[in-house]
Amino acid sequence: MTSSEVTHRDSTKLRDDVQHELRTLFARHTASANEFGPDFALLWNLSAEQIHGGKLVRPLLFLQAYDAFLSASQTPALADHADVTRIATAIEALHFAFLLHDDVIDADTFRRGRANLIGELMRRAPQDVFPGASSHWAQAGGILAGNLLLSAAHQLIARISVPHEERIRLLDLLDQTILATTAGEFTDVGLSDGVIPPDLATILTMTGRKTAVYSFELPLRAAAILAGASPAADAPLTHAALRLGTVYQLQDDLLSTLGDATVHGKDPYSDLREGKETALIGYARLSDAWASVEPDFGDPLLSPERAEELRTLIRTSGAERFVRGIIREELHCLREALTKAHDLPLAVRELVFDLASRIDGRSS
Amino acid sequence: MTSSEVTHRDSTKLRDDVQHELRTLFARHTASANEFGPDFALLWNLSAEQIHGGKLVRPLLFLQAYDAFLSASQTPALADHADVTRIATAIEALHFAFLLHDDVIDADTFRRGRANLIGELMRRAPQDVFPGASSHWAQAGGILAGNLLLSAAHQLIARISVPHEERIRLLDLLDQTILATTAGEFTDVGLSDGVIPPDLATILTMTGRKTAVYSFELPLRAAAILAGASPAADAPLTHAALRLGTVYQLQDDLLSTLGDATVHGKDPYSDLREGKETALIGYARLSDAWASVEPDFGDPLLSPERAEELRTLIRTSGAERFVRGIIREELHCLREALTKAHDLPLAVRELVFDLASRIDGRSS
Repeated sequence: MTSSEVTHRDSTKLRDDVQHELRTLFARHTASANEFGPDFALLWNLSAEQIHGGKLVRPLLFLQAYDAFLSASQTPALADHADVTRIATAIEALHFAFLLHDDVIDADTFRRGRANLIGELMRRAPQDVFPGASSHWAQAGGILAGNLLLSAAHQLIARISVPHEERIRLLDLLDQTILATTAGEFTDVGLSDGVIPPDLATILTMTGRKTAVYSFELPLRAAAILAGASPAADAPLTHAALRLGTVYQLQDDLLSTLGDATVHGKDPYSDLREGKETALIGYARLSDAWASVEPDFGDPLLSPERAEELRTLIRTSGAERFVRGIIREELHCLREALTKAHDLPLAVRELVFDLASRIDGRSS
Repeated sequence: MTSSEVTHRDSTKLRDDVQHELRTLFARHTASANEFGPDFALLWNLSAEQIHGGKLVRPLLFLQAYDAFLSASQTPALADHADVTRIATAIEALHFAFLLHDDVIDADTFRRGRANLIGELMRRAPQDVFPGASSHWAQAGGILAGNLLLSAAHQLIARISVPHEERIRLLDLLDQTILATTAGEFTDVGLSDGVIPPDLATILTMTGRKTAVYSFELPLRAAAILAGASPAADAPLTHAALRLGTVYQLQDDLLSTLGDATVHGKDPYSDLREGKETALIGYARLSDAWASVEPDFGDPLLSPERAEELRTLIRTSGAERFVRGIIREELHCLREALTKAHDLPLAVRELVFDLASRIDGRSS
């Protein structure tokens, strides 16, 4: 198999494998879940449904990186196909656990253009409960379903059959990923709640780290470990992941705050309503426009009309241009670094190049 | 070592071992935690402090059961001392993760007679943030710290050096424990929020199952697995754990709703204020007293004076006598079953007898 064949291998097949494994993951406990009564069965089944709506970006990156590393490897594979698919599935389960808890923390009730788990639970709660009860119950469901998915990620990784050393390296990677992502989320919340001062430097330092670690570093480094790559691959992967994460997060901020909701499918004003401190906002704070934005920023009852006005103010403050400038700079540095990263197989570098270009051009 | 010496082995030493391992668990990532900034370092250090306040009931039960099984075993130990202590620590980490998330869901801000993690975070938030922000930030901290502890439990168990079969049995046990506990918690919340009808049968069926599984079944069965006990031990342990859990939960309900807060150290009226559906309440609902209790039950602003009146109404409705009757009956059945449980070593049966008596007599 040449590196070019590998990186262009049919991603539909990879996607099907992961979807199948996700179904297996939930099917494994469906009987037990039903025994715990109709409410828990509902939580279980809704979680299974919702996780199937994902784009599987992270598991696909992992599987493609794994193929790319393997194509350059001199040694036989450490894990069998089923175990590799299980690691891909663990990466998606972890992502979904984070999404669920983020939605609880942000009090979001829809995602990907439809009701999220919390929204679905609220819709299905009896209509005659006292005010706030169905939302409280649904939020508790979000926390608990997140825990089940977080546990599933650990369980999948703990059970794979690879040599002891590689299993410990994978467990270490998972451990560090959860620590860093949790730290990033706590900083994010602290910024939104005004507990941490929203200066641009803090935001830029932590922007993307959360995303970088679990969306890019975890899939890329897990692939390297499983494919038996040299530990020398770790440093350039971590470096590339941080750049990818920063670019991804800045693009995400642009899309969430200024993008077309009919395309990205999220609540179009939730970032403005919750007062999310992004690099976009960090820059806008330093501009003349901020005096007009500030009184309404973080107002949970912000009207759509006023939200549109805030978007225009932020866009024209220079914040959009500033953020796009950082994105270009990060992509440039990433490409430079990859060119010199001789510890990474060519196929892996091509994959990361390609990913960076897709992130740069994404609209949802 | 005779079985009597084993079950009476100095529990101070066991406690010290677990405390030391808990410190190691947090120390392992203290440097990384500090790198993520002062806020995350605060969350990390507060979590470490708070977990040290526990009575270590579950890890001690595990360690004593492990010793009891081992004393009756013909085969050498499967795990070394350090790994056994790590499993004990995992059990405490899991317990603390559940406590943290329960406190978030119940919006409790103190526990064990002092501010819990959420209360501490609120106290340390800047005073000039907008209303609700410090509480939101603190609650997010509770969710995230719970996730870190849940992950720690998985990581500790995934890393121990025992034969493959026992490792998978331990992972299965952990997996089932988390599923059942999560289901129990979701039912609990559904009852409190009025999403699930609060009939006595539902409450009694699920009462104690949550506690039974993670507080008793997990420590007892983990001990059996690690000590190389026959799988025939599983059924009587599960049976005993369910009875212990029911008794423990009913005692807990009596203490929380009717007990002396200066002894048990919890918020004395939180169960009444959140409208917690316990067996005590399930019975009171069927009595004449309920008409006087109902209007104020679940009122988050319930005054201490009115709460005291509700306590008297519930106590005198016959609910207290009813619950104490179930406790006696469960203890009787547990003792009968243990007498006939020939698949369990005598030392293990003595340990469970002893535990049942202590639960029966506890006041905090």
